Amino acid sequence: MRLATLKRGGRDGTLVAVSADGARVAEVPGWPTLQMALDDWEAALPALRGAAIAAETGQGVAATDFAAPLPRAWQWLDGSAFPTHGELMQQAFNLPPIETDRPLMYQGLSHRFIPPTDDVPLPSEADGIDFEGEFGIVTGDVPMGCTAEAALAHIRLIVMINDWSLRAIAPVEMKTGFGWVRAKPACSVAPFAVTPEQLGDAWRNGRVHLPLTVEVNGQWFGSPVGDAMEFGFHELIAHAAHSRSLPAGTIIGSGTVSNAGHADVGSTCISERRAIEMIEHGALRTPFLSFGDRVAMRAGSGASPFGELDQRVASGIG
Amino acid sequence: MRLATLKRGGRDGTLVAVSADGARVAEVPGWPTLQMALDDWEAALPALRGAAIAAETGQGVAATDFAAPLPRAWQWLDGSAFPTHGELMQQAFNLPPIETDRPLMYQGLSHRFIPPTDDVPLPSEADGIDFEGEFGIVTGDVPMGCTAEAALAHIRLIVMINDWSLRAIAPVEMKTGFGWVRAKPACSVAPFAVTPEQLGDAWRNGRVHLPLTVEVNGQWFGSPVGDAMEFGFHELIAHAAHSRSLPAGTIIGSGTVSNAGHADVGSTCISERRAIEMIEHGALRTPFLSFGDRVAMRAGSGASPFGELDQRVASGIG
Repeated sequence: MRLATLKRGGRDGTLVAVSADGARVAEVPGWPTLQMALDDWEAALPALRGAAIAAETGQGVAATDFAAPLPRAWQWLDGSAFPTHGELMQQAFNLPPIETDRPLMYQGLSHRFIPPTDDVPLPSEADGIDFEGEFGIVTGDVPMGCTAEAALAHIRLIVMINDWSLRAIAPVEMKTGFGWVRAKPACSVAPFAVTPEQLGDAWRNGRVHLPLTVEVNGQWFGSPVGDAMEFGFHELIAHAAHSRSLPAGTIIGSGTVSNAGHADVGSTCISERRAIEMIEHGALRTPFLSFGDRVAMRAGSGASPFGELDQRVASGIG
Repeated sequence: MRLATLKRGGRDGTLVAVSADGARVAEVPGWPTLQMALDDWEAALPALRGAAIAAETGQGVAATDFAAPLPRAWQWLDGSAFPTHGELMQQAFNLPPIETDRPLMYQGLSHRFIPPTDDVPLPSEADGIDFEGEFGIVTGDVPMGCTAEAALAHIRLIVMINDWSLRAIAPVEMKTGFGWVRAKPACSVAPFAVTPEQLGDAWRNGRVHLPLTVEVNGQWFGSPVGDAMEFGFHELIAHAAHSRSLPAGTIIGSGTVSNAGHADVGSTCISERRAIEMIEHGALRTPFLSFGDRVAMRAGSGASPFGELDQRVASGIG
């Protein structure tokens, strides 16, 4: 089952189920928004399943009709679970390796997730505009103290995210120990939120076993696979829930998808490629983004289960 | 004008205006929740003002009837704007001074703010349970790129907060650079959210010129004054809005209220007092909290404009 949100309706849009080819949708009677369905998932399931069947002969939609699956959410916690990414970023920022045996995680802004084909408004090219390709999960209600084993059952949906990042600011904020505020503007989310069973073999061990492919201005940038997480999403949930309950609709991100063997698989963020360039060539070759640059992401080798992100960065100050 | 939220109603409670003595309230016709009023503040003002008058002869209420003014919010950004606190905390954590000329800020959990007299559920006494007395502001909609000068006009309400903190975890998370997730459980908020004009002379230069008094198990702990912020709330707003718009109902915290001259004014968190004990006596004397301990906070020298926080910490597991 794949769910999505159309832009029409209020601030939270209109929930729909999506056809297998991604071109048709059907509304979900009694469940106008995805947040409402997540708040009462078991009760919503029959209507969601009915809508999934109806979607196959439902109304046609265009890519631009879709909002993010959750146009806003009560909580966005972003992990950094790919060790290769962490090591390269510390080199890129001229910082020592992070010594911890726990998952890395920060809380980011969740009052706005940018629709998958909308322009991305940012204040300045001087901030070092970068993208980060991530997988993420959407939880139901998770009690405080939830174990990793129990957490798997609280994963309702899987999503694909572009965690836009400002690299001129990131290391400055990181050095304070407080994490990022200015360095992390709103994220974009691909149109389709997918149930774990829908992913089949591609969802195992709390990880997405699919490549995440990034293109920048139509050129291939990378396609590392999501299974290389040091901690699975269930372990990220348990980490987050140590001293808090997680409300239904919490989104938890994997961090930038990254694999060893960069020459073949490439990267899903510019900063990582730049770190590799410094290591291999002693010089930076790839610039950060300029206004007007286009970033696209999709997952898998055939049709992307999450649909596609295809956006331009734009000046956000009038 | 002082606004509050009663626990009755849905997840967001029921908005009321509060009488001068804090003992009576009146609902706000057409505006059932504070979030709705913040979303459309100018339109809500006449009804809010009418309710403030009606509150003087309104229904009687008990302290336990109140939820936090915003039981949940779309964004909680906590600053650390008192230099004395920052210096002492780095000593307490055995960390070097933070070198930055910008405000310190992290994003914390905002899906739950604990009512002012409810027990505070926490997982373990071994986490080093501490409180932090803070002032905070609630914004209207703030556009990305808002200047500090323009930000003052976006401050709708002023609040008092207890930012519960787990000190055994805080320095571990801080060293990763990612900020705090496990070390920062849900905050408590005092019952009354106060308009800037209601505070009169106590609101100047984007700062609250009132002492914040903490008592632990009935014993005075500290009463430093809120005017010693290195950056005013308007500057914290501008900092936060560099690369994001702030939605109406964003809460921004001052960080732990702290003044130089600890011998007289005391502290509004245990960790700071412990740092002072180490400096002055070479030994820790004050333990962190145990389940059942009681923490109360109020502001000013007479009746507290924000009402009072009076809570016990409690085991949140099992």
